[in-house]
Amino acid sequence: MKQKLSVIKIGGNLIEDPKGFEHVLGLFSKMEGNKILVHGGGKKATELGNKLGIESQMVNGRRITDPETLDIAVMVYGGLVSKNIVAKLQALGTDAIGMSGADANTIQAHKRPIKKVDFGLVGDVDKVNAYAIFKLLQAGFTPIFCALTHDGRGQLLNTNADTIAAELAIAMSEQFETTLYYCFEKKGVLQDVEDENSVIKHIDSKTYDELLAYGIIADGMLPKLHNCFYALRNHVAKVCVGNSEMLDQSNVEYTTLTL
Amino acid sequence: MKQKLSVIKIGGNLIEDPKGFEHVLGLFSKMEGNKILVHGGGKKATELGNKLGIESQMVNGRRITDPETLDIAVMVYGGLVSKNIVAKLQALGTDAIGMSGADANTIQAHKRPIKKVDFGLVGDVDKVNAYAIFKLLQAGFTPIFCALTHDGRGQLLNTNADTIAAELAIAMSEQFETTLYYCFEKKGVLQDVEDENSVIKHIDSKTYDELLAYGIIADGMLPKLHNCFYALRNHVAKVCVGNSEMLDQSNVEYTTLTL
Repeated sequence: MKQKLSVIKIGGNLIEDPKGFEHVLGLFSKMEGNKILVHGGGKKATELGNKLGIESQMVNGRRITDPETLDIAVMVYGGLVSKNIVAKLQALGTDAIGMSGADANTIQAHKRPIKKVDFGLVGDVDKVNAYAIFKLLQAGFTPIFCALTHDGRGQLLNTNADTIAAELAIAMSEQFETTLYYCFEKKGVLQDVEDENSVIKHIDSKTYDELLAYGIIADGMLPKLHNCFYALRNHVAKVCVGNSEMLDQSNVEYTTLTL
Repeated sequence: MKQKLSVIKIGGNLIEDPKGFEHVLGLFSKMEGNKILVHGGGKKATELGNKLGIESQMVNGRRITDPETLDIAVMVYGGLVSKNIVAKLQALGTDAIGMSGADANTIQAHKRPIKKVDFGLVGDVDKVNAYAIFKLLQAGFTPIFCALTHDGRGQLLNTNADTIAAELAIAMSEQFETTLYYCFEKKGVLQDVEDENSVIKHIDSKTYDELLAYGIIADGMLPKLHNCFYALRNHVAKVCVGNSEMLDQSNVEYTTLTL
């Protein structure tokens, strides 16, 4: 039987609020078995950019990663956020090790090809080095991934944290029975976006199609659920979407997705 | 017989100059056997501080690490410099992994006690976790350390890179026959500080005492050589001081120190 592995993505909003941040790290540290954390950087990168007078260029609501913006992402995600998460988890008894996709050559990507828009130094994932991550887990370490990859030729690349979490979960599924957790500010996928308590407890391929058809899943949830089913179709055993309380495996409601 | 290990500290000046930086990483990547790199951050941290309007407080020529200054060190050393070194080494075929002392709980320190001066969030090393580093080396990874430690209670601390290199070399000497390399801008310890070519090829405890007595070692070299002999007295096999050319093991002159 395969060993279990949990891949937990925590959203930027959770990182903004110091109390919520401590809380989610506490829940993460108590989770049993093999685990991997993936974090974004929240608004800290934008704040630092503003202080330095570097304006984010946006096209169609998406940020362009020019070299200065990448440096800021590397400083904030790969430095400030990563190292502070690691120090706090060590204090909680979790033997964390902060990683970008360049470290141990764990995630190779290529610069997104220019079509209508040049997104700049943004990476689309080519390959996750599951063996390197396996070795770290076997050695007793808990990898903490930030949203950075590399192209194998010396260039770091900005990569969406949800995507990194999905790709890690997929790659590790050959060796492990993997559950992917997307933690964000809501309790789960909501039937009625206005009603926090209308959590849909279970979504499978059939209900997913129905929810799409009826327009119940829209806006920000669309790419998130796309990632969930992309992971499920590539051998991830289960995906859970909800707020950080779902990590303590207690009776809180959240959304579970299976094929 | 013990396996060999090289611990290489590269100075901030080498990081400033892009060409020199690429060169030293090329030499490092070609070194055979187990190896660990330790890097400072050069002037980039001061530059970022200036841009953000955060002035370094200095007392007796030494920087005070207030919380804002620590954040900058974490962003620059632990983020920007570390991740770019790792990406470049990966491109050169070295399976690098960027570390602070918090990562894998490798270096624990305590905040320097307040005597005449409160240096702020500066750490004095308590314990290097040689077993964690051994596991990384055995797994085929090359650890790249920045000059940050942690106190085990969630606080990151700024720590001198020369000291970190010495402490790492000492801790690893139980398992490995360890050589410690201090790379800086000069060719080695100079007989005449005005003459770049007056490299003293070998220093042992006896000649060290003589050089001290005659005032030949002074200023910046004093703490550096103090670190060297501290390492040698704690079972490090050999210490080498010189510019980066000494890493290609060719016939360039540099200073070798033994007990």
